Amino acid sequence: MVDRMAALKNSIIETFGTPCPVIDLDVVDRNIERAQNLCDAAGLANRPHIKTHKSPLLAHMQIDAGAVGITCQKLGEAEVMADAGISDIVIATNLLGAARSGQLAALQNRLPLKVCADNPVSLAAYARAAEDAGLVLDVMIECETGQLRAGVETPADALTLARAIKDDPWLNFAGLLYYPSLDGWPRTQDFHDEMVAGLASLGLSAAIVSTGGTPNFEHLGELKGATEHRAGTCIFNDMMMVENGFASLEDCAFQIFTSVVSRGGENRGILDAGSKTLTSDTGGLEGFGHIVEHPNARIHKFAEEHGFLDLTNCNDKPGVGEIVRVIPNHVCVAVNMVDQLVAVRSGEIAQVIPVAARGRLV
Amino acid sequence: MVDRMAALKNSIIETFGTPCPVIDLDVVDRNIERAQNLCDAAGLANRPHIKTHKSPLLAHMQIDAGAVGITCQKLGEAEVMADAGISDIVIATNLLGAARSGQLAALQNRLPLKVCADNPVSLAAYARAAEDAGLVLDVMIECETGQLRAGVETPADALTLARAIKDDPWLNFAGLLYYPSLDGWPRTQDFHDEMVAGLASLGLSAAIVSTGGTPNFEHLGELKGATEHRAGTCIFNDMMMVENGFASLEDCAFQIFTSVVSRGGENRGILDAGSKTLTSDTGGLEGFGHIVEHPNARIHKFAEEHGFLDLTNCNDKPGVGEIVRVIPNHVCVAVNMVDQLVAVRSGEIAQVIPVAARGRLV
Repeated sequence: MVDRMAALKNSIIETFGTPCPVIDLDVVDRNIERAQNLCDAAGLANRPHIKTHKSPLLAHMQIDAGAVGITCQKLGEAEVMADAGISDIVIATNLLGAARSGQLAALQNRLPLKVCADNPVSLAAYARAAEDAGLVLDVMIECETGQLRAGVETPADALTLARAIKDDPWLNFAGLLYYPSLDGWPRTQDFHDEMVAGLASLGLSAAIVSTGGTPNFEHLGELKGATEHRAGTCIFNDMMMVENGFASLEDCAFQIFTSVVSRGGENRGILDAGSKTLTSDTGGLEGFGHIVEHPNARIHKFAEEHGFLDLTNCNDKPGVGEIVRVIPNHVCVAVNMVDQLVAVRSGEIAQVIPVAARGRLV
Repeated sequence: MVDRMAALKNSIIETFGTPCPVIDLDVVDRNIERAQNLCDAAGLANRPHIKTHKSPLLAHMQIDAGAVGITCQKLGEAEVMADAGISDIVIATNLLGAARSGQLAALQNRLPLKVCADNPVSLAAYARAAEDAGLVLDVMIECETGQLRAGVETPADALTLARAIKDDPWLNFAGLLYYPSLDGWPRTQDFHDEMVAGLASLGLSAAIVSTGGTPNFEHLGELKGATEHRAGTCIFNDMMMVENGFASLEDCAFQIFTSVVSRGGENRGILDAGSKTLTSDTGGLEGFGHIVEHPNARIHKFAEEHGFLDLTNCNDKPGVGEIVRVIPNHVCVAVNMVDQLVAVRSGEIAQVIPVAARGRLV
């Protein structure tokens, strides 16, 4: 019997060397379909967050499967997606740098955008950018509902912002952005109910009400009044999603193919993938990723280009030259390290996919 | 009085937006000169490790200041440096992926390289690459002297490798690579003394004996028989180098200029630089970098594009829109996130420097 995985590994290293980031398009197809079906079943539009893949090609696959548009986290990501013909874009964060650098106005001149704010300084910067563009800008209000990241903390403050948007000739109120913590959905409902009433008293309504996060698929549809969901990780999945039960190992589409390049002592090994490949982001898990061929081997530490293996609990210890596949704990930051992904279909190299929006800082 | 830093911050955000990676060339000059002077004083050649900056322009500045050549960690880095006319290159790691992909032979056909190995599998891959290139390849032996990373663990095993190199018509023994731990210098001397004697009995000698690491400048010259030193971080420095006493804050040439984009509650703030900008690498320190303007503010957590500020101990709490400068804990991995550095001289934007070898995985 031909070992197809051994043949693929040989193709990968002989064509690209190691370490090499690989995605399985068969798994990607399945993951895209699953997210779309979950949104469809909940009666929500699907607006995937492209921060995970940063690739126009993959964004188009999501749209072809039924997504209404995309979510970006950076204006630079939206620029790249606009270049690829994607026109319905929410940028889900306060954009101070891009507003002040002129990039927001420039992109607004190319296509309508929906941006987010949680404070008056952002609104002022948006209004100036919109005036520079000569076009009214759609603004959503980001609300704090459990993650303690950005987001207005109270409905009263959010309504003050909504009024400021209403009163600014260059801004248009476009909706509400929520990112509930896993246990924050009831609280989010209370927040949202107050917002609906308060907005009505201002003569406003939220055209878009967005919830977010792959782990939150568990609660999808629980927010009455939500119109769409944005999730990123679910296109590839990772060990965090395996840990929280959303995905199985077979649902993880992204792997780093890496060579064992050194073996010191009985229980030590070194991979040619370190913190500059897999990142130091543990995702709150133990170690730095799952080795498919040796699940009991632990990546316990990184140098920049070296992964340190602890092989103590590994019966079949890999030798120098063996190629192993690592599923990262957090796939979004791992994809962000590389300029291209090698895409495999039916076990064979199919194409190279540029991570075209990588490195767009602003 | 004109606030020059305020003017620079305005120039940065209006030209590039935030977050923006900035280096101060006045500090870079001083840091390059200092490393060169330390090597000169110790009677060692200086072969800076370019993993920190990945920029041919900065490598040429190091060579112009007296460096004998450069050290790379990836073959792809060496390709970029060769493109820029740099010809004396050590690649300080086992290169299995690049050897098997054909890239090693291709680069060897362009210029002589010095590569490293700690095991016979690497030697076999090198011999095959050299035969493909039709050129004898210089190989150094990497020795384990305290970091427990790669490296042959005993002089006896290292001498076995040296003999294999000697016996292979496609390989030439070029020297020894050490990376002593801070307390590992006496042990390294013992290892090296055994190597010198053993090599002599094989009719070999080490043309290059390399020590490494910016923290190891403290022990520079302590290894009798060393011929050169390779250090990376010292060109920029970072909070790890401040912590270990090698550098002061004023010696840190690299900073991320980042905007406060949100303020939730009295003691919470959000920066527009997260783990995709500053990385999750703590360098073993507390928090994720030093905020120059607010040294008592803590970056205690990251989302991908958000830095979470704890402002509890900060008297003068920054407002939304304030631009602050962050010195990362580990500069090498932070530079590795970006495609270009904005270079400042005498407090003004001087040029944009491509991080040309970033993303060269193999």
